[in-house]
Amino acid sequence: MDDITVAVLGTGGIGRRTLELSTHKEWLTPVAACDRHGIAVDHEGLDVTELLDATEGNIASGDGGAGDPVTDGGTAIKQSGAGEGVAASVQGDSTTTPIDDVIAESGLIDAVLMALPNLEHDFIPRVADRFVGAGYDGVLIDVLKRSRVIGLLDEREEQLVDSGITFVCGAGATPGFLTGGAALAAQSFVDVESIDIRWGVGLKSGYEDNRGTVREDIAHLDGYDIETAREMTDAEIEAVIDDHDGVLEFTDMEHADDVLLERAGICDADDVSVGGVLDVRNDEKPTTTTVSVTGTTFDGERATNTFQLGDATSMAANVNGPAIGYLKTGVRMNRNGVYGVFGPAELLPGF
Amino acid sequence: MDDITVAVLGTGGIGRRTLELSTHKEWLTPVAACDRHGIAVDHEGLDVTELLDATEGNIASGDGGAGDPVTDGGTAIKQSGAGEGVAASVQGDSTTTPIDDVIAESGLIDAVLMALPNLEHDFIPRVADRFVGAGYDGVLIDVLKRSRVIGLLDEREEQLVDSGITFVCGAGATPGFLTGGAALAAQSFVDVESIDIRWGVGLKSGYEDNRGTVREDIAHLDGYDIETAREMTDAEIEAVIDDHDGVLEFTDMEHADDVLLERAGICDADDVSVGGVLDVRNDEKPTTTTVSVTGTTFDGERATNTFQLGDATSMAANVNGPAIGYLKTGVRMNRNGVYGVFGPAELLPGF
Repeated sequence: MDDITVAVLGTGGIGRRTLELSTHKEWLTPVAACDRHGIAVDHEGLDVTELLDATEGNIASGDGGAGDPVTDGGTAIKQSGAGEGVAASVQGDSTTTPIDDVIAESGLIDAVLMALPNLEHDFIPRVADRFVGAGYDGVLIDVLKRSRVIGLLDEREEQLVDSGITFVCGAGATPGFLTGGAALAAQSFVDVESIDIRWGVGLKSGYEDNRGTVREDIAHLDGYDIETAREMTDAEIEAVIDDHDGVLEFTDMEHADDVLLERAGICDADDVSVGGVLDVRNDEKPTTTTVSVTGTTFDGERATNTFQLGDATSMAANVNGPAIGYLKTGVRMNRNGVYGVFGPAELLPGF
Repeated sequence: MDDITVAVLGTGGIGRRTLELSTHKEWLTPVAACDRHGIAVDHEGLDVTELLDATEGNIASGDGGAGDPVTDGGTAIKQSGAGEGVAASVQGDSTTTPIDDVIAESGLIDAVLMALPNLEHDFIPRVADRFVGAGYDGVLIDVLKRSRVIGLLDEREEQLVDSGITFVCGAGATPGFLTGGAALAAQSFVDVESIDIRWGVGLKSGYEDNRGTVREDIAHLDGYDIETAREMTDAEIEAVIDDHDGVLEFTDMEHADDVLLERAGICDADDVSVGGVLDVRNDEKPTTTTVSVTGTTFDGERATNTFQLGDATSMAANVNGPAIGYLKTGVRMNRNGVYGVFGPAELLPGF
């Protein structure tokens, strides 16, 4: 009854870690995984160790960064260090239509985790359309980052409800975990004046595996956007890093925490700011990841509540743990007949 | 559709503050309130200002402490400084059966907040029985503290489900708000080794209004229990406070955070500890309220995540804000046909 079967779209960093985390969760059985090389399906449960070996070169994202290898014919993404992919697994089959192949199995899948965080903005909404078209009626969950994607999903709310799909969006670290922390911390207040999300990541030992993430982060710097960052050569990326002595600081990032907190009625999107510090040359976090929520209580006091992550927790743990947690809640909602689009802050106490 | 009507049982500190908070929440309309003096009902919405005036002397609990005046014929509770109660309100009627009178109106009530935190252990379960008996099919929510009450509610799960009741238990500060913080902070980890909840409260200016709370807290000190604390005279209570120079420190309190976190699958109840420091003679909090969750991530790192409340947030804000938040989630669940007994940690992402 409480067991959940999951399909994982993408075998970059997030997809692989979802598979790995599933081995810690008795209730979660990965039954399908795909990347642009192929698809693996086993309704009794995939051999995770074998799949992790087969997709080892695919870690191109440490926190859900760019470079995921899933495409559906034409949506090719730059990727460094790609391995042989799912098709190299004994269980896997080579295919040119990996997502369609997962959709064909979707009647036996409770939840689909779209580990495709940094593709074109409309990629995930378009994948959702294809699941709707195939009559899927389970959970779709993503770890997207950009605010503008939420609107594209909202436009699809009616079709998702009609299909019986529960779509949980922005369920990684930020948005996701830290959005949830903000929504909970807001409960002391009747008026929230500001929510400040500030993350720290140290990447030295993981840099080679996280080039995609660094590229995506550069897109948030002044003078860059997703398109320009995507076109940069590795040498150009290195040059930007050198210019900053290995430490990239970000302010006012376009992360969907803002619209997801507004959706939940907690504050205006404009009251939310997201920033962080990425140190490419040290493993130590350059700053402690902290969510600060400032507001006024019903009895007129102004205060700040905080939610803080231990410095030893990796970006990976803080993306994938919450994603699996929100997935579990999404499946419970779906089984109770609750359909539509939901952000992480809507799965917490109301405001 | 999103509007919620609420009945409040009890006009001690928590009940009064629920009424006050409702004036900050457009979606929440209090339509009934009762205490041992009487009942007030208005399906268009109670006159909160008038009710607060009429029940002013009833604040006997600052964080949901003892001394709530609701009884149902025989369950008299010691209370200092009781006012004239609901019956003194122009809208209110004197009654000897206040809870039954609310139950009679329950067809028009979406949620019932039982602001009765410190009565006998089986009082809230028995009130639930009476709502079941009357065919109520909405939300019941309480701000109880003691672990042992949860078992009494679990025994009633089947009747509650059959009745279509969604029961949210332990939805104040601790358990409640801080339980939720712990459940969320746990999401970084695959194994949680300890959860430490430590609260600080400064009471100087509110002492007279919070004698009931102090009495209930004394029941947690070594050598005392609920029964002995209830029998103490005010002079005996003062003597204990003097012995401690006004600062009472508590360890290993029986607060239901432990069983509620175990229910949600986050850790064993034994891994949870609750303690705090109450300074009766200062308004400043003697320690910052902090939840610390220590665990191991899927990638083998040990770390501690924290959830911390600003020192200026009052006990009142941290009990009543979350209670109203959990109430909203409970009503959404109830309207979606989700019935049974739920703790705060079960309304957050799964684990």
